[in-house]
Amino acid sequence: MQLKNQVEWALHCCAILAGLGADRYLPTRDLAELHGVPKEYLSKALQALSQAGIVVGTLGPSGGYRLARPVGSITFLDIVEAVEGKQSSFVCTEIRKNNPCRGSMSPAAAGDGRPCAIARVMWEADRAWRKSLEGVTLADLAKTLEKTVPASLWKKTAAWVEERT
Amino acid sequence: MQLKNQVEWALHCCAILAGLGADRYLPTRDLAELHGVPKEYLSKALQALSQAGIVVGTLGPSGGYRLARPVGSITFLDIVEAVEGKQSSFVCTEIRKNNPCRGSMSPAAAGDGRPCAIARVMWEADRAWRKSLEGVTLADLAKTLEKTVPASLWKKTAAWVEERT
Repeated sequence: MQLKNQVEWALHCCAILAGLGADRYLPTRDLAELHGVPKEYLSKALQALSQAGIVVGTLGPSGGYRLARPVGSITFLDIVEAVEGKQSSFVCTEIRKNNPCRGSMSPAAAGDGRPCAIARVMWEADRAWRKSLEGVTLADLAKTLEKTVPASLWKKTAAWVEERT
Repeated sequence: MQLKNQVEWALHCCAILAGLGADRYLPTRDLAELHGVPKEYLSKALQALSQAGIVVGTLGPSGGYRLARPVGSITFLDIVEAVEGKQSSFVCTEIRKNNPCRGSMSPAAAGDGRPCAIARVMWEADRAWRKSLEGVTLADLAKTLEKTVPASLWKKTAAWVEERT
């Protein structure tokens, strides 16, 4: 079970957009160049972020993207769900209903009103994954990056980005 | 991001095998009939469980599968990883290395020795998912099923299974 590459790209793009000055927009082509990913596929990830209200895009020669909300209010979960959707990683297809021993039992008599005990465990684990992602915002990420990316690379990248906004 | 159907099937099969008497084996065709799933695809899931040391299979006319270990020592994580593998749901492709601002920086100077801060958050969430799955054994599941599956269906199913072992 693997997340799409676009999740990785979307997270990196949001990390960069988190550093833009107020009302600055960074074009898709520059986000693509900075991360070495194909512009056309990256566009789809950015559109998904836009539809989820995480980024705002403008058209035109100075067009591009900026974050739609303060960095402290955008979580990893917001970004992951914008690209992957909110559906649980476990889909219960109710195979318990195929049990031939049910015979002519009504759904109520067979206990269908209660979710399958197996699905409940799987859904709980999915919630634990989402809760972990919900606990980290772009503000938290920016703090970690500032501490862990070497200062010279950090400054060069910030200047490279600013020139293009 | 979705788990394979075989994860659901493997979990249901293990729940049934958890109820078998000592040294009893249940054939694949009966496991397939009980769950209403295609025998050929179910065989692959059972083989994956066998390779992971969760079930033991025997060949021949009275062949089939039983659990390889006590129910208290088999977790949901064991079963999920047998089918899906142990690789994290997030694969870091190191797109930070494509940053044109790195220029002629050495990998060490660019901070490559430290894992990407984005990947670390994603890996932590994957670990939270696995930890949740690791916290539930087949013994726990059996207790829940005994409480939640209606008694008449529970007995009929146990008798149906026993006849075929």
